[in-house]
Amino acid sequence: MSLRTPYLMFIGDAPDQLAAKTAQGVVDWAPQWCKGQFRLPGCNADLGLDDLTLEEAAAAGVKTLVIGVANRGGVISEGWSDTLVRAMELGMDIASGLHGRLRDVPAVRNAADYHNRALFDVRHPSTQFSVGNGQPRSGNRLLAVGTDCSLGKMYTTLALWKSMQARGMNADFCATGQTGIFITGSGISVDAIIADFISGAVEEISPANEPDHWDLIEGQGSLFHPSYAGVSLGLLHGAQASHLVMCHEPGREHMRGIPHQSLPTLEDCIALNESCARLTAPDAKVMALAFNTSKMSQQAAMDCLNSHADKFGMPCVDPVRTGVDAIVDVLQS
Amino acid sequence: MSLRTPYLMFIGDAPDQLAAKTAQGVVDWAPQWCKGQFRLPGCNADLGLDDLTLEEAAAAGVKTLVIGVANRGGVISEGWSDTLVRAMELGMDIASGLHGRLRDVPAVRNAADYHNRALFDVRHPSTQFSVGNGQPRSGNRLLAVGTDCSLGKMYTTLALWKSMQARGMNADFCATGQTGIFITGSGISVDAIIADFISGAVEEISPANEPDHWDLIEGQGSLFHPSYAGVSLGLLHGAQASHLVMCHEPGREHMRGIPHQSLPTLEDCIALNESCARLTAPDAKVMALAFNTSKMSQQAAMDCLNSHADKFGMPCVDPVRTGVDAIVDVLQS
Repeated sequence: MSLRTPYLMFIGDAPDQLAAKTAQGVVDWAPQWCKGQFRLPGCNADLGLDDLTLEEAAAAGVKTLVIGVANRGGVISEGWSDTLVRAMELGMDIASGLHGRLRDVPAVRNAADYHNRALFDVRHPSTQFSVGNGQPRSGNRLLAVGTDCSLGKMYTTLALWKSMQARGMNADFCATGQTGIFITGSGISVDAIIADFISGAVEEISPANEPDHWDLIEGQGSLFHPSYAGVSLGLLHGAQASHLVMCHEPGREHMRGIPHQSLPTLEDCIALNESCARLTAPDAKVMALAFNTSKMSQQAAMDCLNSHADKFGMPCVDPVRTGVDAIVDVLQS
Repeated sequence: MSLRTPYLMFIGDAPDQLAAKTAQGVVDWAPQWCKGQFRLPGCNADLGLDDLTLEEAAAAGVKTLVIGVANRGGVISEGWSDTLVRAMELGMDIASGLHGRLRDVPAVRNAADYHNRALFDVRHPSTQFSVGNGQPRSGNRLLAVGTDCSLGKMYTTLALWKSMQARGMNADFCATGQTGIFITGSGISVDAIIADFISGAVEEISPANEPDHWDLIEGQGSLFHPSYAGVSLGLLHGAQASHLVMCHEPGREHMRGIPHQSLPTLEDCIALNESCARLTAPDAKVMALAFNTSKMSQQAAMDCLNSHADKFGMPCVDPVRTGVDAIVDVLQS
């Protein structure tokens, strides 16, 4: 799957800014691809881009309309069809990160077939994968792991990518979720593939490479999350990453969505990730910590980061607050 | 998914007995449901059942034709269509454990629609699952885990089920693979579902139950298999089993299908399974060992079983050679 750029960011009738989180992530990390936004009446979100008509977007060279809005039930709204059909008439492909499939909306499917446009449901991989084989492969790989879901694994990996690129290092970002796929234009939504092929799909998106090349692989979930740990373990085995970065949000009270489940300790989470990772990457090691301290004061956050760096003997950063240079310094050394 | 019984076992043009392994498993464990076999010219397998014509099978009350044969590429052969269509004309549903879908064969799909018969692709779950939640639930659950794939997890679980039923215990077998599904008439092929829902699907097939009830859950893969560990971990978390039985084949030289990967030690495999299982079942413990000693002499096998029972302080059986009574004794105590 490879999306054509640039994009028109469609946020429909998003009730609030949070509903446009996916689109916002793309704007933050791939601004050069976002030519404008398209909003319907009632939209309460704003990506800070120019509002373009579909005709203006086409004239500006937009190749793909990206549906970057979360919707109740994850379905394609009836009210969106006219916009999507017109975009295809004007030459655009459509990409969606929703659970519902574009192809299941008759008007959208018919227009795509008639105008010969591509429909990308990035949560529904269409390729056939192989099962993983764990065969050692060349190149360097780093994977973001975590104590829980939704605490900054994608953000950390993207920050590393930008920092390494700025230093002229040979690095790629490997997307494993919908927002990451829109940001790089390719990748695989690993939580949406058939269970037997999790590690195989990850092997495929981070293949053997040059000795100085880095694949920075976006992690998903946590080995300690009762809903998604299977995805995380398959990802860990498939990534075959010698370098692991442990992501964490200090002060989080329970696993996301599971009020009865407390978070693991950092020590336990590091130990289990290293132990499992070594099945396919014998020298795998957690070499840095990346905390989300967004709810802490500057003083408390810096104390927390410094004390953990001391305690664990490795860089401990907040990618937003401090940047990730301390980690890249180690990767370069 | 719930299959109608009894069955006609279709083994097509199986080139050898191994190709009919699935059908043989059903005959071994659910002989009461197997009214006969149906073979095409060139079939070199024999299930030891009466060869029935489709008309004889229908007259004998058969409700489902079960495709119990492995095929190159896992597809529905062109040469089978006439048989499948005629079976549907005579009132039968069709169930298949192949990778290819029955519905993708036009003649089969059309006949099913015309005669209003059900097509069961047991490797393609059609239901929508919820994500797992790890919420504690009542009843007793036992899960077979293993050092590797294909070393007797299904056989061990079925042997426990039969032994417990014979003692009047309140026990069900929960199938997680195609052969098991044909044997019980229901279940979920967990390696074939979307990765996000592995643990949720297992929670669904082994729901809360009476305090004296046992769900005996068929395991899949191994936490140490680089291809399938994600499935195994989701299964472990979803099963929420206090009782684990570790399955192993002494002398196996490498992980199945992965010549460069050696097997874990029993100690490591027990430790990792217990540690991960305790996320959702805090008192989870490996309480017995089940070995596949089919390649060993009687003397060597018994020495091996006895020495491991002593070393690990728990029953160590070969379900085929010794039966599983030593395990059920512990479950009853």
